[in-house]
Amino acid sequence: MIDAAAVEVLMRHALDLARLGPVVDPNPRVGAVVVDVDGRVVGRGHHRGAGTPHAEVVALAEAGAAARGGTAVVTLEPCDHTGRTGPCSAALSGAGVARVVYAQADPNPTAAGGAATLREAGMRVEQGPLGEEAAALNQAWSFAVAAGRPRVVWKFAATLDGRSAAADGSSRWITGPDARADVHRLRGEAGAVLVGTGTALADDPRLTVRHPDGTPLSRQPLRVVMGRRDLPARSRVLDDTAETWRARTHEPAAVLQELLDRGVRQVWLEGGPTVAAAFLTERLVDEVVAYLAPTLLGAGSAAVADLGIPTLGQALQLRLDEVTTIGRDLRVRATPLTDGRS
Amino acid sequence: MIDAAAVEVLMRHALDLARLGPVVDPNPRVGAVVVDVDGRVVGRGHHRGAGTPHAEVVALAEAGAAARGGTAVVTLEPCDHTGRTGPCSAALSGAGVARVVYAQADPNPTAAGGAATLREAGMRVEQGPLGEEAAALNQAWSFAVAAGRPRVVWKFAATLDGRSAAADGSSRWITGPDARADVHRLRGEAGAVLVGTGTALADDPRLTVRHPDGTPLSRQPLRVVMGRRDLPARSRVLDDTAETWRARTHEPAAVLQELLDRGVRQVWLEGGPTVAAAFLTERLVDEVVAYLAPTLLGAGSAAVADLGIPTLGQALQLRLDEVTTIGRDLRVRATPLTDGRS
Repeated sequence: MIDAAAVEVLMRHALDLARLGPVVDPNPRVGAVVVDVDGRVVGRGHHRGAGTPHAEVVALAEAGAAARGGTAVVTLEPCDHTGRTGPCSAALSGAGVARVVYAQADPNPTAAGGAATLREAGMRVEQGPLGEEAAALNQAWSFAVAAGRPRVVWKFAATLDGRSAAADGSSRWITGPDARADVHRLRGEAGAVLVGTGTALADDPRLTVRHPDGTPLSRQPLRVVMGRRDLPARSRVLDDTAETWRARTHEPAAVLQELLDRGVRQVWLEGGPTVAAAFLTERLVDEVVAYLAPTLLGAGSAAVADLGIPTLGQALQLRLDEVTTIGRDLRVRATPLTDGRS
Repeated sequence: MIDAAAVEVLMRHALDLARLGPVVDPNPRVGAVVVDVDGRVVGRGHHRGAGTPHAEVVALAEAGAAARGGTAVVTLEPCDHTGRTGPCSAALSGAGVARVVYAQADPNPTAAGGAATLREAGMRVEQGPLGEEAAALNQAWSFAVAAGRPRVVWKFAATLDGRSAAADGSSRWITGPDARADVHRLRGEAGAVLVGTGTALADDPRLTVRHPDGTPLSRQPLRVVMGRRDLPARSRVLDDTAETWRARTHEPAAVLQELLDRGVRQVWLEGGPTVAAAFLTERLVDEVVAYLAPTLLGAGSAAVADLGIPTLGQALQLRLDEVTTIGRDLRVRATPLTDGRS
């Protein structure tokens, strides 16, 4: 029998294993540790991404017969559905595990996780420590499972007087090199990078994630260009550095449904103003990341187009989460309040 | 004879005395301590504002004959000009002081301070410690003396997407109560509060400095409304809570000259966009204080009107000095770079 302190040590170990998994994936990052009846670690596993075995299955395979009568410590409530790899509840049951401790509960609001099934199979099942840390590992995935759509982060850059482009349309570069490197880092945490046809036509962006020296990373987010206008065949966003989906619609919800089906859990929305307004109006922005440059232009377009808000009292309200200086610029992270208007 | 450590102690005492003077005044805040030949403090003084005796004169009066052969420790280089109160150099000389130590040198780039005159009169004169602390006491006055015009601080409030008013023109209140209280505090540090006729007509502001409970402070900055349009006689800015100057011109430099002549050392520029643009275009803004609300509007006017900047590469460059959260809002203080453009 392992006590609470030992469970926490094992759960920290499972969390460390979970972190070995891919940051961007349709599936959550999960780690699992199996201990035998005497409390010795006999199996370890983590999930390596969609299409590969779940963490529990990996750990049970390593444990073999030593799992019988033992305890499985898992960062996420074991699944109960038959996907590409079979339900983990069945694997735990079949291995003869006596006790299961998990950190984060299955965030799916309709379908239950595997805890009930495991209990029915006679196992002792409990939600253990470090649930918040486990959930933080899979913020986008948890959101997507709970909300039924990918999480959307809207990024914009603007001058201190709120201009995202100068009078002649020039917008490269509003922010300095440190802020641009930060954008590439955060782009890299998304399953998809989305712009409207207006931005694609005006700026001809690559939308790839690149190292500071300009070379692209091996894993690239899906590039999404939303809108009905055609793009020139030589557009950089259509090159072969990364996959691109031309979403020929003006409906954010339809785009998000398709992206969810494609396994995207987080969308990095880069604008321009029309697309940003479309997502904001439909309350489909979950986080705002604003890069503000210490400059003034006095003319030029703002980051977001008409939201249909006529008067100050109806402004969209956000909660300031974090303010950081990045090089010469300012980065502001904020969350739209769920009640929306003040 | 007093040594360097003793001089620093006396200078700190003089700085404390200086702080007793009025924050807003045409004259600088100055403190003075006089010690006799044996190093005993025999006189203390501070300047109580324009039209009253200078700090040295007050300290010498207290010291009387004990000043003879002693040392005067003063936070600012003694003046050498005959104003309403006669030059301090003559007073020190007449009192038979043997040595004078001052912290901040006279910032006037053309007329010298009193140090040379004192030396000619046979006194030992030296610039001592704590010069920066002394200068910080009189930032606006020092600037005005050096530049020949008042220091200008431009304040604006805007949403995160850069709107200073909603589509219907409403702008009360973009920021929360804490930010508005902060504005009143900073207004109170200025000799004048300036808006254009557009703002006066649209918002009918009082432009007074008020306590959080709404009652006005006893000392009020001069209210300045700049522009040629007439204001209704019942405009709140024309009430008798404070003095108001109708500056019927579009020339920022002319307004600043008149304000300097009226004894104003710091101007708190509150807009609107046209007046802000006029000052910025002429490089007559010395500090920017931006209050950014965590809200989005999607429409409405920006804080500053056309600056004649066509393209991003010509944006006005600022240096970020300080970023603070104030209540639910963000306050950004920044300094326009003297070379102006990137």
